[in-house]
This record gives sequence, structure tokens and C-alpha cells, in this order.
Amino acid sequence: MARREGFDCYCVSFDYGQRNCRELDAARAVASSLGATEHRIVTVDLRAIGGSALTDDIDVPKDRPTEAMAAGVPVTYVPARNTILLSLALGWAEVLEAADLFIGVNAIDYSGYPDCRPQYIKAFEAMANLATRMGVDGRRIRIHAPLIQMSKEQIIRRGVELGVDYSLTFSCYDPDAAGRPCRRCDSCLLRAEGFRGAGIPDPAM
Amino acid sequence: MARREGFDCYCVSFDYGQRNCRELDAARAVASSLGATEHRIVTVDLRAIGGSALTDDIDVPKDRPTEAMAAGVPVTYVPARNTILLSLALGWAEVLEAADLFIGVNAIDYSGYPDCRPQYIKAFEAMANLATRMGVDGRRIRIHAPLIQMSKEQIIRRGVELGVDYSLTFSCYDPDAAGRPCRRCDSCLLRAEGFRGAGIPDPAM
Repeated sequence: MARREGFDCYCVSFDYGQRNCRELDAARAVASSLGATEHRIVTVDLRAIGGSALTDDIDVPKDRPTEAMAAGVPVTYVPARNTILLSLALGWAEVLEAADLFIGVNAIDYSGYPDCRPQYIKAFEAMANLATRMGVDGRRIRIHAPLIQMSKEQIIRRGVELGVDYSLTFSCYDPDAAGRPCRRCDSCLLRAEGFRGAGIPDPAM
Repeated sequence: MARREGFDCYCVSFDYGQRNCRELDAARAVASSLGATEHRIVTVDLRAIGGSALTDDIDVPKDRPTEAMAAGVPVTYVPARNTILLSLALGWAEVLEAADLFIGVNAIDYSGYPDCRPQYIKAFEAMANLATRMGVDGRRIRIHAPLIQMSKEQIIRRGVELGVDYSLTFSCYDPDAAGRPCRRCDSCLLRAEGFRGAGIPDPAM
């Protein structure tokens, strides 16, 4: 969506101690296939903080119905994760003198992650404009979250329209040793629902 | 100051690719001497972002008069650094269920760092309350910056009153190979000014 709006894209992914690094390979492949100018991986050791099923020794929940997903902050919530990742992206943006940051958070399908809500994104943007040399110099930093109010079904449809190769993408929180998705974690279930709703077969499954 | 207010202190320092790690040893020694409950070091690779004399291949300025220090954002500014470090501290705070975060930023002596200003700290606090499970659960997160409006001289005096052992502390941006302070970078010069103003010899120099 950023490319379609005419932006040159400097993509950043994070090796933050998540259980699986398959998503980093997928991010690299997707960035390359969509014509990113550059893709960097920044390392930050969130295992030193812990507190999440994605970084700590806590089981990833499986086979949860959508209502259970919506019932509270899940154990897969990584404390302050989007704040940490947006902050690191903001640091690189300052070096690049880039005032437009895009993040793919999505608030609609389930309400459990506080750092996926529009009011959070607005507050981060206000803070970013005070935190940085760009802000002091009068450039207006904008945090774009174009997927935030879309359903998973709408996201899949929009991606297909834009030519996203979904066979390169990866969503699972807890793949097996061979890197295959578990098909049972919240992320796999929501992905499946999105493809089903859009009436499109998932080429990565 | 947090200890004096009765807080149990969980201290966090960051190995972010800074030129010298002497400050990490100093932080550990200070935390221990002041009775911290715990001290953790979190690793985040800001070298992958670059853009600062503290993490990149850029010379640290020396022998600058105070007016030059105040004249703009210095090359020792690390893009979005305090935002990144506060975000990581916020992550650990969530795991600990701690709603009070302390940071030792100081705005008075020179105005070059945008992320040392009171309005920045306020904006971060507002964002933190929207970003986290604690905030959603109705706990009020507070970012304390007790040094922010103090002069270096006042800071030295207050530390002496509270029994800080300044021989354990370290300020230099650019120590020599033996870990001795350069006495010429902005940080060494401001430290010397503080001790001189307070009329107290610096036990670390």
C-alpha cells in the first residue's frame, strides 16, 4: 500500500528473540518481491524482559474460538512490543530523514492487543514529533496504519488486488521444526478465516 | 531519589552498541551500592541504525564551549534513543507490573536533545498508558524524570546528600583504551562544571 502511494520503502524487521525466525525470512522475501529499496533486520533481545508466549517459556494457545481471542490480552502479547518496534523504526527513520512510517497493525478482528488501537497509534505519533530532531526541525512525522480498521478478509482481498504473493508470507506463532505452520494458533486461525472469507485459497498452506 | 521515595528499584541498562561499555560496569556498581532489587542489561543493536557519534564511525566533538553545546542537536544524539530505551523499560515494567518508571534525563544545561524535554516525557507517558495492558487495566503509568529541571551543580549536591558514591560513576562519551575519561567531550566538560559549581572534588577523576 505504501509502494502504491509512491513511497520508496525502507523496510525493517526485528529479530527480538521470537520463537521462530521463519517470519524474518518471509519478511525479506516479501520486501524484495514488492520492490523495497532496502530491508534491514534489527536485533533486540526481548527475552531479557520475558513475559510473553512468543519470547518466554509459555505455551502458545491452540484451537481457540474467536470469542476467546477477543476476551482479553492474550499470552502471546509481548509487553510494549509495538512501542519498542516503532521506536526502533523511528530511529532509522531519523537517520533516513523519512517522516512517514507504516506499520501493519490490525485492531478489528480481536481487541486483545492494546498497542494495535488507533488511539495508541495517534499517541505514538504525537510523542514521535516531540522526540526527534525531525520534529524539532518542523517536519511532521506520520505513523500510517492502513490495515488497522480492515477485516482480515478485506486485507487478503486488497493484497490480491495489489499483487502480493501470499505464498511468500508467514503468520504462524508456533511452527514445527520443519518451519510448517501449526494451523491451530490464533494467528493461523485468523489467517484461515481471512482467506476463507475472501473465497481465495491460501497458497502458503 | 526513587529509593528515597520508598520504591523497590529494578534497574535496567542498555548495551546498544555504544562505543564504550565502561558505563555499563558503572551502572551495575551504582545500582548495587544504592540497594537496587535487581539490575538487568538489555541488548539492542542500534549500530544497525547508525546516525550517531556514539554508535557510528563519527568523531565525538571535543573542547566545545557551553554555547556551542546549546546550539543544536549534537552528533552524539542517538536517533530516538530515549524513546527506544524507555520503550524497553516499559516492556519490563509491564512484566513486573510496575507503574512507576524513572529516567535520569536532564534538560537544563543544554537544549540540544529533543528527547530530554519535559513535553517529550509527558507525551511518552500518555502514549505508554494507551500502549500497555497496565494502562488498559486502569493503572496509571508515570514517567518520573526528577533531574530534568535541575542544573548539573544541583544534581551533584543532591547526590552527595543522598550518599551517592560518585567514584563509581562514569560520564565520558569517549574513554581511552584503558577506560579513562577523555576530559574533553561535552559529557566530561558538563560533569566537571557540575562538580566545580558544587565546590566538590570529583572522586572519579
